[in-house]
Amino acid sequence: MKAEVGIIMGSSSDLKVMNQAAEVLKELGVSYEISIVSAHRTPELMFEYAKNALSKGIKVIIAGAGGAAHLPGMVASLTPLPVIGVPVKSSNSIDGWDSVLSILQMPGGVPVASVALDGAKNAGILAAQIIATADEQILRNLQSYKESLKSKVDQMNKDIKA
Amino acid sequence: MKAEVGIIMGSSSDLKVMNQAAEVLKELGVSYEISIVSAHRTPELMFEYAKNALSKGIKVIIAGAGGAAHLPGMVASLTPLPVIGVPVKSSNSIDGWDSVLSILQMPGGVPVASVALDGAKNAGILAAQIIATADEQILRNLQSYKESLKSKVDQMNKDIKA
Amino acid sequence: MKAEVGIIMGSSSDLKVMNQAAEVLKELGVSYEISIVSAHRTPELMFEYAKNALSKGIKVIIAGAGGAAHLPGMVASLTPLPVIGVPVKSSNSIDGWDSVLSILQMPGGVPVASVALDGAKNAGILAAQIIATADEQILRNLQSYKESLKSKVDQMNKDIKA
Amino acid sequence: MKAEVGIIMGSSSDLKVMNQAAEVLKELGVSYEISIVSAHRTPELMFEYAKNALSKGIKVIIAGAGGAAHLPGMVASLTPLPVIGVPVKSSNSIDGWDSVLSILQMPGGVPVASVALDGAKNAGILAAQIIATADEQILRNLQSYKESLKSKVDQMNKDIKA
Amino acid sequence: MKAEVGIIMGSSSDLKVMNQAAEVLKELGVSYEISIVSAHRTPELMFEYAKNALSKGIKVIIAGAGGAAHLPGMVASLTPLPVIGVPVKSSNSIDGWDSVLSILQMPGGVPVASVALDGAKNAGILAAQIIATADEQILRNLQSYKESLKSKVDQMNKDIKA
Amino acid sequence: MKAEVGIIMGSSSDLKVMNQAAEVLKELGVSYEISIVSAHRTPELMFEYAKNALSKGIKVIIAGAGGAAHLPGMVASLTPLPVIGVPVKSSNSIDGWDSVLSILQMPGGVPVASVALDGAKNAGILAAQIIATADEQILRNLQSYKESLKSKVDQMNKDIKA
Amino acid sequence: MKAEVGIIMGSSSDLKVMNQAAEVLKELGVSYEISIVSAHRTPELMFEYAKNALSKGIKVIIAGAGGAAHLPGMVASLTPLPVIGVPVKSSNSIDGWDSVLSILQMPGGVPVASVALDGAKNAGILAAQIIATADEQILRNLQSYKESLKSKVDQMNKDIKA
Amino acid sequence: MKAEVGIIMGSSSDLKVMNQAAEVLKELGVSYEISIVSAHRTPELMFEYAKNALSKGIKVIIAGAGGAAHLPGMVASLTPLPVIGVPVKSSNSIDGWDSVLSILQMPGGVPVASVALDGAKNAGILAAQIIATADEQILRNLQSYKESLKSKVDQMNKDIKA
Repeated sequence: MKAEVGIIMGSSSDLKVMNQAAEVLKELGVSYEISIVSAHRTPELMFEYAKNALSKGIKVIIAGAGGAAHLPGMVASLTPLPVIGVPVKSSNSIDGWDSVLSILQMPGGVPVASVALDGAKNAGILAAQIIATADEQILRNLQSYKESLKSKVDQMNKDIKA
Repeated sequence: MKAEVGIIMGSSSDLKVMNQAAEVLKELGVSYEISIVSAHRTPELMFEYAKNALSKGIKVIIAGAGGAAHLPGMVASLTPLPVIGVPVKSSNSIDGWDSVLSILQMPGGVPVASVALDGAKNAGILAAQIIATADEQILRNLQSYKESLKSKVDQMNKDIKA
Repeated sequence: MKAEVGIIMGSSSDLKVMNQAAEVLKELGVSYEISIVSAHRTPELMFEYAKNALSKGIKVIIAGAGGAAHLPGMVASLTPLPVIGVPVKSSNSIDGWDSVLSILQMPGGVPVASVALDGAKNAGILAAQIIATADEQILRNLQSYKESLKSKVDQMNKDIKA
Repeated sequence: MKAEVGIIMGSSSDLKVMNQAAEVLKELGVSYEISIVSAHRTPELMFEYAKNALSKGIKVIIAGAGGAAHLPGMVASLTPLPVIGVPVKSSNSIDGWDSVLSILQMPGGVPVASVALDGAKNAGILAAQIIATADEQILRNLQSYKESLKSKVDQMNKDIKA
Repeated sequence: MKAEVGIIMGSSSDLKVMNQAAEVLKELGVSYEISIVSAHRTPELMFEYAKNALSKGIKVIIAGAGGAAHLPGMVASLTPLPVIGVPVKSSNSIDGWDSVLSILQMPGGVPVASVALDGAKNAGILAAQIIATADEQILRNLQSYKESLKSKVDQMNKDIKA
Repeated sequence: MKAEVGIIMGSSSDLKVMNQAAEVLKELGVSYEISIVSAHRTPELMFEYAKNALSKGIKVIIAGAGGAAHLPGMVASLTPLPVIGVPVKSSNSIDGWDSVLSILQMPGGVPVASVALDGAKNAGILAAQIIATADEQILRNLQSYKESLKSKVDQMNKDIKA
Repeated sequence: MKAEVGIIMGSSSDLKVMNQAAEVLKELGVSYEISIVSAHRTPELMFEYAKNALSKGIKVIIAGAGGAAHLPGMVASLTPLPVIGVPVKSSNSIDGWDSVLSILQMPGGVPVASVALDGAKNAGILAAQIIATADEQILRNLQSYKESLKSKVDQMNKDIKA
Repeated sequence: MKAEVGIIMGSSSDLKVMNQAAEVLKELGVSYEISIVSAHRTPELMFEYAKNALSKGIKVIIAGAGGAAHLPGMVASLTPLPVIGVPVKSSNSIDGWDSVLSILQMPGGVPVASVALDGAKNAGILAAQIIATADEQILRNLQSYKESLKSKVDQMNKDIKA
């Protein structure tokens, strides 16, 4: 099955966070691929990845990075696909503020869809929501997922009363 | 033509910022509608809007709000559609930080695609990119738009050398 | 005994903090109930809870939440009762700033009474102070509580001189 | 009519903001009085004010201050009444952060009910909500007030469609 | 020997930090006394302490507090003596910002001499510098202390070269 | 009359703020002198000024600076006299945070007595309080000054009731 | 004369700030060229510029950008030349914090030499200092420049005493 | 071999961070020396170090400091050499913000080339880049170093696919 979502990140040290995107995409039935693509260490690889994503059949790119996090914005500059940015609280980050601001504050013309700090799970769900705008099965999966969130709260209330 | 993008905001005082989303959607050939829906003043209207958006044919919701900005996140809790949040630097905001953080920092399970502070233009482009994942015409429009960004920089270089 | 204070929170992971409200209410002789009500995962439950609180006899609601903390403000939009918001420094929070700002910075018309980050104990005392505006017994309990704070400082001074 | 709400502030330069509390209290039918009481310039007057408020018949105190804003917290230390703190973005404030943090972050045992930066209007509504826990008329006034908020949004939607 | 410096703090939990002021005062030959005086739990004691300090012979007051730290500013409002404020990064503090801002940002007319977060040692040295403006022996002790700082750096350079 | 307080600042653009220190010192009867001494542009002059201040009869130094404000801390490293630092919100400052932090956060061993952002008036009063620890006349002047603060609040209350 | 310093920026709206680099380079006798190169709108142009700078004879690149400022870091990823980054407080910036953090917080391996917010003048001087490590004439020009800074302070002192 | 880069820091407690500059300089074939030079504890030593660096043959100075970090800026005021500042997240720092701002925000006229918080490795690479503007061998070493960064990402991709 060809991947619909491309998950990239600047270093394998981001894998622990970014795997949460992969897990929820799997749960929601969306195909994906994972690669390490560093804006600062492998700019040519990043160019190539971003330039080829559309023709490879990728529909959404999820890009995670920390510190001066340029990967999501640079990929967005090179592709018309929607790019979801995950600010990672990496070891070199000032409490996450640098990651958040350098992903969120893109100039007019080149959007990045930002999620919360270390919010890779939500990046996966958002990618599925985008796919679901033209895929009824994924939409139904998302609706079931939303129901499952309610069930967890129901269970918490039973536990608390017990 | 039925609207594919629903633009909502908490108050007509946000219109100045949020109209930039409408303008770029128009430029990119995407249909949209605009309403005032306040999470805090009209919670029932917000529930109704969010619950009905999918069946009305809306594919993406753009929600703008300032201060303790709950509209994007609450709408996202009530619909499986992708929701784009625009933090507005409203008059009651602390330099925009409250708007940004109360939209961006959604808990796992309920994503909001956040754009920059007052970044309504990018919200419009992002909505078009989402539509374009299943609409070749919009994709071509986006590719032309990206080319036009380059032309503007070319012109700046000519001006600077003149 | 019917509960006068309703304590709610978005997840049972907030219980450790929010139980401090329950403990001090017990100490001050105020009746309360505790439920898990998530703005983002169970918006319908939240609506129902907020809409029914007044008729059930609740006089004050204490709502705790972390990250993009919408629970206190949304409940406040749905009830005329005073709502006390407790910003919780949850695991997904940026040092607590998101929790604080998304609870504190409510727009004009819909107040939330915010207490300090993780300040559930003070939320309980504040709820008792509100009840005490029309309940002499609770007022006396609060006056005794204030005296007990002084005794603790007296004891510290004895310890330090010892 | 004896005042049920005492509005105090550190300087007459805070009046522009704090008058919004008075206006909404008037609109909601709650009696109030206004005084200048400075924690740092008139500590004895502050002591006296806080110590006597309960016996004078005051039920809620609204205290506004800017910069290192000690007035709300100090008054709360001296009375069992609920104290609402309004952080004022005064001329000597660092973007309001000092006012917010020195009012919000009270230690366990001595709560202050904080509202948004310059949120005096909400302080007034919150005071009315506290009074309304034992006053049916004020409760009805608050319910009407909430309805009026909805009407304003309805009107905005009519204007936008016009 | 009568104490020339009064060291106070809101709770014995601040002792670990504040003892560093006592230690350096001892080293510099300045007499001191230590007490627990809480602005919020024992406002009357604080009033009494501040009002009597001058007549007891105290020349400088060092006040440490965390969170919404009102002790240094309130003491400064009640005495003409110089007051040194030590922002303590207490357990209820937001990374120390609340302690720093609520001590530093005093309004015009009532100064507090603020030192760094947890900077009790420097508070002690500063108190000695104030005493030394009229005490030659303490001045000489301070000059020796400054020399000892240089010796430590000399030793570090020897160690690094070894 | 020989100056007891030395007021220095990095540039004549800081004069507007720093003159407030001079004015209140004059009002309180304390002698002073004013000079421009830049840590970064005239480091040798700064060394000389700081090294000679004690022998010239200066008892307290007030140093104002903005941005990366090194003047107060560097002067403190070169003299045993108490140094009061005034963070100035200069045109090159990030909302004053750089000025505040680079003055306040001195390492253990070399204190600077920091006042509020642009708080030159309080720097002057603090200098007078330091002089007053050994000068009864200045102490009486300070006590009168504190009384005048109260009178201003009394007048405000008369105005507000009028 | 071939340019030794390449000054680039994302938009001609940054020219007002960035021209200060050009002016001081001219004053110091260093040759330069100016171009508009946008990381997000013209990524290919940026690649080309950065890849060719060394062979064109450029020795130092000064790159200015605002908001999510990726230009300096991306250029640094593509050239072995030293890159000086100027955070610009552009209209879409949150008080400059985004510009500062997305330039400063580069990951290990790819440095950017950051200067102050809007600090283009210092970027020019720094570029000259780098050139001067192997150019005696520029070194002498820098030494004269440093002397001129002192003269300005001398003049300020004369003015203040006048 | 005479040192081309001088690495200095305020205390041997900064060695753990600052040694990363030394290590990468060694790897890149650039000679260096390390000393402890404290702006606040040994201002005379700092003056001497900065004044003599040029004549000793030093071409670039790397200065690391934490808290109110004055060392890089003060050294820059005393030498025409390029000075690289490393903000160190020392134990007395407020999450690194003080170190960053007091190094970065230098006034016009006296630049410091700032790197990321604890970014000593990048300080070393930047120093090598400056040396390489006139040293072909170091330039080749830097080009190899950049290639090695790519190889590491290639290896990560092999590992992730394995």
